[in-house]
Amino acid sequence: MLSFVVKDKRLVARTKPLPRLRPEWALVRVRLAGICNTDIEILRGYHNFRGTPGHEFVGEVADVARMAGREKARWLGQRVVGEINIPCVPLGIRRVCRYCRRGVFAHCENRRVLGIVAHDGAFAEYLALPLANLHRVPGNVSDEQAVFTEPLAAACEILEQIPVRKHREAAVLGDGKLAQLIARVLRMAGLRVVLFGKHSNKLALAKRARVAAIRVRGDGRDLRAARRGFPLVIEATGSPSGLALAQLLTEPRGTLVLKSTYHGPAAAEMWAVVVKEIAVIGSRCGPFARALDLLRKKKVNPCPLITRVFALRDAPKAIRFAQKPGVMKVLLRP
Amino acid sequence: MLSFVVKDKRLVARTKPLPRLRPEWALVRVRLAGICNTDIEILRGYHNFRGTPGHEFVGEVADVARMAGREKARWLGQRVVGEINIPCVPLGIRRVCRYCRRGVFAHCENRRVLGIVAHDGAFAEYLALPLANLHRVPGNVSDEQAVFTEPLAAACEILEQIPVRKHREAAVLGDGKLAQLIARVLRMAGLRVVLFGKHSNKLALAKRARVAAIRVRGDGRDLRAARRGFPLVIEATGSPSGLALAQLLTEPRGTLVLKSTYHGPAAAEMWAVVVKEIAVIGSRCGPFARALDLLRKKKVNPCPLITRVFALRDAPKAIRFAQKPGVMKVLLRP
Repeated sequence: MLSFVVKDKRLVARTKPLPRLRPEWALVRVRLAGICNTDIEILRGYHNFRGTPGHEFVGEVADVARMAGREKARWLGQRVVGEINIPCVPLGIRRVCRYCRRGVFAHCENRRVLGIVAHDGAFAEYLALPLANLHRVPGNVSDEQAVFTEPLAAACEILEQIPVRKHREAAVLGDGKLAQLIARVLRMAGLRVVLFGKHSNKLALAKRARVAAIRVRGDGRDLRAARRGFPLVIEATGSPSGLALAQLLTEPRGTLVLKSTYHGPAAAEMWAVVVKEIAVIGSRCGPFARALDLLRKKKVNPCPLITRVFALRDAPKAIRFAQKPGVMKVLLRP
Repeated sequence: MLSFVVKDKRLVARTKPLPRLRPEWALVRVRLAGICNTDIEILRGYHNFRGTPGHEFVGEVADVARMAGREKARWLGQRVVGEINIPCVPLGIRRVCRYCRRGVFAHCENRRVLGIVAHDGAFAEYLALPLANLHRVPGNVSDEQAVFTEPLAAACEILEQIPVRKHREAAVLGDGKLAQLIARVLRMAGLRVVLFGKHSNKLALAKRARVAAIRVRGDGRDLRAARRGFPLVIEATGSPSGLALAQLLTEPRGTLVLKSTYHGPAAAEMWAVVVKEIAVIGSRCGPFARALDLLRKKKVNPCPLITRVFALRDAPKAIRFAQKPGVMKVLLRP
């Protein structure tokens, strides 16, 4: 099958055999894959990953290992999305870790992560995942919507971590793909949302989703000038400098949710977090069921965020395109 | 009166008139003042403070402004400790800020802070504070114990912010004065506490308070080697490098309380906070009533933390002594 791997900070094509399946694992034919900023960070060295990237996908089940008859038939051809963390049990680890024992699979000590840590991802014709990771896509949700399930779930994770309804408003720092989904999810949850970003076309997208949008310059001078605090701030710039700006926007005893992952350290005036008694909450993967429910009920429509769809064979061109200013979601179709 | 002020990164003596009192303010004769790491940071430039430092004290009420008869008599001669944040109303600000309106006086937007921000502190014979900031010291609490009320309240703030009983154990990073008080407060709250520090004499102090103590080297290699996470970690090293080490000690979805304030930025691998979904909670001033209650009931005895008492006139010598390795609390007696 055609797949792409990371080599010398670039994506290169490689023909690989179909992935071997463990018991209770499925072979998934990829229908659409999304390019995420994390994929770009991986090209830059994040996690030192050398396999096939890609963790956002919608596909259909092409095979299920060691399963026969009716149970297998129930899966074959099903349109699915998949959670990206593969924990102890499906990896065949007998002495399961303490997080798996508690059911906190996303933090499994032995986990592999689709397209990120030690497991080939979705920039390929096929991928393999445990059945337990798969979620069926409702019939009224298109492939173009379903491919956003993973980042939309990451946005929904904030609702799992924070009692957001306690707050009347929130600031989202960043105007990229994840920031846009977060703004829509918080808007849907009933909050007044102000999104701060640098790109006028991206801010216009937010406004169309009834999110207030404010343009800021690079040094954050405008944020300082705004001089008003928010009780809830989401840092989703994807940049190490985002934390310092987000801290300025957070009022004393406020909550600052960190969503950006990037390669390397960030310099932050952490004394201000102490003096203002801010709660800084790291937030990563989220609930797929909740995200699919939002898509099924048409409460969030991510499709306006798609800039372009490339054929899988053009993946190197697509990932270069995805890094251009103003470009939002770029998809790959095998 | 004799007082000391910050000049060219040193304490210098200065004879000042007694502080003028606003209505509902008290003149307090200082009986004992404590030297805190924040005072040393102030000498280094923290907050650019140029007045009289000192925010830990026990004293007695020498005068009360514009108050007569029985009410004044109730205060005169009372042994008191005082909260350090002076908010809008006692400052005479008519349009009180939104934090004061909510009763969150410690975060008042217009606050002055005893010995830290725009208000002379306790390294003097007398200081002035609003009556509303004062707490009477119970008769069975000695001056040497009462002078710890402010840092002990800061330790108790953790109990106000975090449901600590949810956890069975906690790690405290740092073996200094505040770290030691925090370890005792968490121990008293029923947790198993492990304190990580660099100084064997300070670790011995912790052990005497039934706190497990582990010696670590400067680079934190031992912490990495320990390779085990704590659900609750308190960073109280007072050093910018503490955050990175504390993050290593915190397990996924754990809570990391930041207590250190220092001058300047810290470099932190904040992506790890995101991936581990850690909650980093800034924590500052705490409840005086709770701290006094612990002292009154003899649940925490801070006296073993006192290294030496100097006369106020020797304050410059005392603050140099306080910076020597192995030295814990240094007190000034006017």
